[in-house]
Amino acid sequence: MITGKNYIGNSLSSKGNKTFTTFNPQKNIENNWVFNEATSEEVNQACELAAKAFKIYSKISGAKKAEFLRKIAEEIEGLGDQLLKVYSLESGLPAGRAAGERGRTLSQLRAFANHVEEGNWVEATIDTAQPDREPMPRVDLRKMNVSLGSVAVFGASNFPLAFSTAGGDTAAALAAGCPVIVKSHPMHAGTGELVSLAIIKAIEKTGMPSGVFSNLNSSGIEVGQELVQNPNIKAVAFTGSLKGGRALYDLAAKRDEPIPVFAEMGSVNPVVILPKALENRATEIAKTYAGSITLGTGQFCTNPGLILGIKSAGLTNFVNTLAEEIVAIEPSCMIHPNIASTYEKNKSKVVSQKGIDILAEVSKNVQPNFAKQVVTSVKGKTFLENPTLHEEVFGPYSIVVQCENEDELQEITSKLEGQLTGTIISDDNEISEYVNVVHELENRVGRIIFNGVPTGVEVCPAMLHGGPYPASTDSRFTAVGVDSIKRFVRPFSFQDWPNNLLPKELQNNNSLNVLRTVNGKKTTDNI
Amino acid sequence: MITGKNYIGNSLSSKGNKTFTTFNPQKNIENNWVFNEATSEEVNQACELAAKAFKIYSKISGAKKAEFLRKIAEEIEGLGDQLLKVYSLESGLPAGRAAGERGRTLSQLRAFANHVEEGNWVEATIDTAQPDREPMPRVDLRKMNVSLGSVAVFGASNFPLAFSTAGGDTAAALAAGCPVIVKSHPMHAGTGELVSLAIIKAIEKTGMPSGVFSNLNSSGIEVGQELVQNPNIKAVAFTGSLKGGRALYDLAAKRDEPIPVFAEMGSVNPVVILPKALENRATEIAKTYAGSITLGTGQFCTNPGLILGIKSAGLTNFVNTLAEEIVAIEPSCMIHPNIASTYEKNKSKVVSQKGIDILAEVSKNVQPNFAKQVVTSVKGKTFLENPTLHEEVFGPYSIVVQCENEDELQEITSKLEGQLTGTIISDDNEISEYVNVVHELENRVGRIIFNGVPTGVEVCPAMLHGGPYPASTDSRFTAVGVDSIKRFVRPFSFQDWPNNLLPKELQNNNSLNVLRTVNGKKTTDNI
Repeated sequence: MITGKNYIGNSLSSKGNKTFTTFNPQKNIENNWVFNEATSEEVNQACELAAKAFKIYSKISGAKKAEFLRKIAEEIEGLGDQLLKVYSLESGLPAGRAAGERGRTLSQLRAFANHVEEGNWVEATIDTAQPDREPMPRVDLRKMNVSLGSVAVFGASNFPLAFSTAGGDTAAALAAGCPVIVKSHPMHAGTGELVSLAIIKAIEKTGMPSGVFSNLNSSGIEVGQELVQNPNIKAVAFTGSLKGGRALYDLAAKRDEPIPVFAEMGSVNPVVILPKALENRATEIAKTYAGSITLGTGQFCTNPGLILGIKSAGLTNFVNTLAEEIVAIEPSCMIHPNIASTYEKNKSKVVSQKGIDILAEVSKNVQPNFAKQVVTSVKGKTFLENPTLHEEVFGPYSIVVQCENEDELQEITSKLEGQLTGTIISDDNEISEYVNVVHELENRVGRIIFNGVPTGVEVCPAMLHGGPYPASTDSRFTAVGVDSIKRFVRPFSFQDWPNNLLPKELQNNNSLNVLRTVNGKKTTDNI
Repeated sequence: MITGKNYIGNSLSSKGNKTFTTFNPQKNIENNWVFNEATSEEVNQACELAAKAFKIYSKISGAKKAEFLRKIAEEIEGLGDQLLKVYSLESGLPAGRAAGERGRTLSQLRAFANHVEEGNWVEATIDTAQPDREPMPRVDLRKMNVSLGSVAVFGASNFPLAFSTAGGDTAAALAAGCPVIVKSHPMHAGTGELVSLAIIKAIEKTGMPSGVFSNLNSSGIEVGQELVQNPNIKAVAFTGSLKGGRALYDLAAKRDEPIPVFAEMGSVNPVVILPKALENRATEIAKTYAGSITLGTGQFCTNPGLILGIKSAGLTNFVNTLAEEIVAIEPSCMIHPNIASTYEKNKSKVVSQKGIDILAEVSKNVQPNFAKQVVTSVKGKTFLENPTLHEEVFGPYSIVVQCENEDELQEITSKLEGQLTGTIISDDNEISEYVNVVHELENRVGRIIFNGVPTGVEVCPAMLHGGPYPASTDSRFTAVGVDSIKRFVRPFSFQDWPNNLLPKELQNNNSLNVLRTVNGKKTTDNI
C-alpha cells in the first residue's frame, strides 16, 4: 500500500500540507497516489534520529550488517509484482526493464553484504610496538576504516530502483555503517515508498535501530537543501544534472563543517572511431551505435552523445548508415514529461547552432512524452569553436564530429570536459599510432573502452563509474561496485589501545580472518 | 649557495621586483639572503610546465619513481651541514632538531620509494570477461589507481623540512606520479631553496622531465591564491592555520572545476584523565604532560592544549604538580617573531576570559621571541559556555577543565570540534566505565591514544594524521605515512583493453608481482 507519507525512522509521518503526485508518461496522466512533501521539522527529526542510530549502527559487526542488507533484498523481492507495476506506472519503462533493474538492485545489496561479511574493506593496518627502538620507543598503532556518519542520498530520475531508495548509494552507505536519509525522487515517489517499506521491515526484523533509514518526499529543492546543510549529515550522494549536483556541492562547501558531495552528473561519453575501423566496418559500428544511442530512450548517463572521426569514405559510410539505422528504431517513451520537454528544448538549441547538419531525425508524429531520436554532424573546427555543442543532450541524441585530420582530432580530445567514459574503436592495432589521442582521452574519463559501447555499466569490483569534473564532483571515487563504500568511510588510528577494547579487526587474534597489513606485510595471521 | 630565486622547473627565475628576507629568531635579526617573490607569469609558467611534465611523469614506472625519490634523499643528505645551519638560522630550532627532522624527511622519501617500488598501492582490481554469461556477456574490466594531476604544496611553518619542500606532501604526490609546485614558506625560504636544489639535481640525474618540481617564493597570499585557482592544478596540500586552510578550501571549491584541498589545520588535542589514574599517579602524569606541552616550544600540531578531568583530590594534585613542573622548564625560542607575537596575543585573549585561573606562568624576563609557557584552569560549566576557550593557542599553552562529574565530562567531550588526536589516561580498566566519553571522543578525532601523549607522530602505515573538520578539511585521508599517497590518485578502469597496451600492473602476466584482486580474490597469480 502506498500511503504518500514520509518515513522518519520506522514511523510514517505527514506533517506538511504540500502534496504532489507522480506521472504515467505512457498514458500521459497523473497517477492517483498523493505524496506529502517533508517539512523542515521532519527533515530535522530524520537527521536527529540518524545521529542517534549512528552511535549503535556504526559499531555493528560486518556479519550483522550483511544480514540486514540481505534482508532488505529479500523484502524487496517480497514486494513482488506490485513493485514492478508501480515502477512502470511512474517511469513508463517496460516490465522487462523493471525486472532487470530490480535484479541489479538485489545483486548490489547482496554484493555489499558479502563485502562487509568478508571484512577486508576496513583495510586493517597494524604496526606493533618496538619498546627498545632507539632513540625513541615505537608505539603500537592500529588503523582501520570506520563509518563517516549519516549520509543523504538523492535518488536518480533514470534508475528508480538501482540508483534510488535502496540503490547503490544507499547500499554502500549502509554497508559502511552509515545511517541513510533518502530524498526520494519526485518522479517515482511511489516506487520509493514501497522500497522504503521493505527497508523498514528489514530494520525491524534484524533489530537495527530506528533512524538507520528515513525516506523524505520532496518535489521542490528545499528538502534537499535542508538535508545538505544539516550538521548531522556527513556526506551526500547524488545522481542527476550538473546544475543540481553543483548546487548541492556549493551548499556543502559553504557549511561551517564542509562535507563531501559525491555527485554523478552525466557526460557525453566521447567515442573515437579510428580510420581503419571506419574503413573495415563502418556499417557494423553504425548499427551498434544506433542501438547504444537509443537504448533506454537515451536515458543512460553513459549514452554516447559524441562521436569523433577523421574525414574519409569510411566516415561518410558510417554517418549515412547511422542516419538510416537511427530512424529505423521505434521511438519510445521518456520517463517523465519534464524529461521529454527538456530533451526537446536542448535538442532544438543544439540543432539550431551554426554549422550543424541534421543527419536524421524521426519525422513522424509520436505519442506524448515519446522522444524523437536525432543524430547530427559537424566539422571539427565548428565543434571546437562552439561550447554549446559540447553539452549533454539527455536523451536519444548524438553528434558526429568530422575532423580534418589527426591533429584536429587530438586537439578536440584535449579540449573535452571530464567524462564518465571514453571509447576507442580501432582495427589492426591502429590504436598504437594514436597514443596522444588516447592519452588526452584517458586524462578526461573514468573508464576507457576498447571496441565496445559505453552503455552497460557492469556492477563489479573493477568498475569505475565516475570521472573528472563535471562527470562527477570527485573523480577519486566510484559510484558503482563495492569500492563505492570508500566514499563513506574514514581511516581511524588507535595508539597503544587495550587489545580487548579494539574492534575485532584490529585485535591480536584475527578472529574475523581479515587480510591485514602487519608491519608492512599483508597477512591473515594472528599477532 | 642560496640565490633567492624561484625554480620554474629546472631553471632559476626572478622576474619580479618584490623581495623579502627570512629571520633569525634566536638573534632577533634578519638573515642576509634576499628572496624574489614569484610573479603571476612565473606561477603560470610553473603550472604549464607541470602539466607538460605530467604527460610523461604520470606514466613512469614505480621502479623509476623509487630511484628518483631515493636520489632526492641522497641529494638532501649531500647538502650536509649547510642545510642544518640554514634551518637553524631560519627557525631558531636547535641543531639536534634540525638533524632529527632531516632524518624524518629522508626516511619518508625512502618509505615512499619502497611503497611505489612494491606497487600494491595501485590496488589493481581485475574482473575477467565472461563471454558466455546470460543474459548478457560480461566484459573484461581492469581498474587501478592513477595519478590525479599536478599538486600545489604549501609548506608548514613548524616543520621546515619534514612538512615542507620535500616533506610528506611532496613525497606522497611525487610517489603518486603527480608533478609538484611548492609554495615555499616565507619563514624558511632559504632552507626551501636548498632542498629545491637537491630535488632539481635528482630530476637531472634520474632523467625526470623538467616541471616535475617547481619552487615558488612568496611572502604574501597572492602566489598561493593563483596556484589554487590555476586550471592545471588538480589538488592542494596545506599545513597551517584554520584561517589559511579554509581560505584555500573555499577558493578551490569555487573553481569551475573544484579540486580537493587537504588542509591539516591544527587542533587542541583533548586529553581525558580518568579518576583512578589521577588518584594513582597524578604527579607522574603531570610531569609527562609538562614535557609534552612545552615540547618544541609547543609548536606541534598535536600539542595537548586541553586537559579534562573530574574534580577530585587527584585532579588538584595533578593541577598543582603541572603548575610547578611547567614553570621549571626553561623557556625556549619560537620559530619566528610573528609566531611569538601571535602566541602572546592568543594567550592574552584566553587568560583574560571570565572564570579562568592562571595556574602557572613563566614570570621572569625572556629573550625576544622566546615563549613564556602557561597553564590555566577553568570549571566545566565555564568552558562549555565560552567558545573562545575551545580555540587553539599555538605554543606552550594548555587549559585544564575541571568537570563536576562524568555527565559534564561527557557533555564537554560531545561538544568539542574535530581534532587530530584524543587521549585517554586510565588505570585499572576504569576506561570500560566511560564508554560514552570514549565514543564521543572517537567521533571527533583521527587518532585515539591510550595512556600516552599526543605529541610524537610516528611515520608508519598505521598512522592517521588528520581528523574531522576543523582538524583537517577531509577526514578521509592521512597526511602522514604511505597511505597519504591516496590523496593524489584516482581509480581508472580499462574495459576490454588490449593486454599489451595495459599498464604492467593490469596485464595478464603479473610481471611486477603486485597483489591484485582478480574476480574477487586477492592474488599475485598471472591470469
